[in-house]
Amino acid sequence: MDFSELESIYKKSGGDFKEFKKISATVDVGLKFSFLKKINEIDVQLFGLISGDLNPIHFSEEFAKKTKFGGRVVHGMLTTSLVSTAVAMLPGTVVLLETSFRYLAPVRIGDLVAVDCEIVEKEKNRYKVNVVCKVNDKAVAEGWAKILIW
Amino acid sequence: MDFSELESIYKKSGGDFKEFKKISATVDVGLKFSFLKKINEIDVQLFGLISGDLNPIHFSEEFAKKTKFGGRVVHGMLTTSLVSTAVAMLPGTVVLLETSFRYLAPVRIGDLVAVDCEIVEKEKNRYKVNVVCKVNDKAVAEGWAKILIW
Repeated sequence: MDFSELESIYKKSGGDFKEFKKISATVDVGLKFSFLKKINEIDVQLFGLISGDLNPIHFSEEFAKKTKFGGRVVHGMLTTSLVSTAVAMLPGTVVLLETSFRYLAPVRIGDLVAVDCEIVEKEKNRYKVNVVCKVNDKAVAEGWAKILIW
Repeated sequence: MDFSELESIYKKSGGDFKEFKKISATVDVGLKFSFLKKINEIDVQLFGLISGDLNPIHFSEEFAKKTKFGGRVVHGMLTTSLVSTAVAMLPGTVVLLETSFRYLAPVRIGDLVAVDCEIVEKEKNRYKVNVVCKVNDKAVAEGWAKILIW
C-alpha cells in the first residue's frame, strides 16, 4: 500500500490530516511556534498497532471506566509525538537529540491538542525547545526537546 | 474502519504485528524485561500520518541521502514509542508519568529494535524504569520512564 492510499484511509477514518509545512522564521532563542492536531479514534488505533501498545486503558471503555481515569485515554506518547512534528517544522533539516516530558493530565479521544514551543537555548546549531501540550488551555504534558539543525 | 480491518491492512503492508501480552513477574527493583519489534516502512508512514511529522528525512530517499545520515531514518519518537508498550506489559494498569530519552544513532527502516528495561527505583506504586533501545546490540536510544501502576 502506498502513502496516498494510507492517507486516504486515514482521512476517511476521521484522521485530522495535516500538510507538512515549514515555518518561515529565524531560528533563535525566543522564537515561539505551535502545532495543533486533533487526536481521534483512528490515531489511537494506529498508534497501538505501530507501537504494539494495546493496553486496555486506551482500547476498552468497559475496562477504562473502572479505573481512576473513568474512561479511555490517549497514549501519552501519542500526544508528545506531536512535538516531533512541531520541531520538524523549523527551517532546515531537524534531527531530534533528546526529549524529556512529564504527563500531567489524561488526553481524551477527540481532544484538540495544541503544542506550544519556545526556543530557550542555542549553542551553534543545537537548540533546546521548551514544550507545553495543552487541551482547552490546560497543560496535559510539558517538557523540552533538544534538536540539531543541518 | 474497525480495529480488525486496520490490523489486517497493517499486517498485509508488512507490519510486525505483536499480540499484547502481560509479563508474569513481581514488579520490583531489579526486574528486567524486554520488547522486540521490527520497524518497517508501514510504521514510518503511519507514524508520519498520526503525528503529522512528514519531515523528508523520514520519507524522501533522494533528500535523505544528501544529509549526514546518508539515507532515510526512522522517527526517533517512533523508536521510543516501543517503550510505551514495554512498560504497559507489566502486571496491573500502567500509567505513564514521565519520560526522558537521548537519541544516539539513526534507526533504519527494517531494523529490529530491542527495548531492554530494568526497574531501578520504587516508591509505593511508582517505579523508575531504565531503558536502552538497541539495534544489533548497539544502543540507538536510551533513557528512562517513570510509571504508576494501579
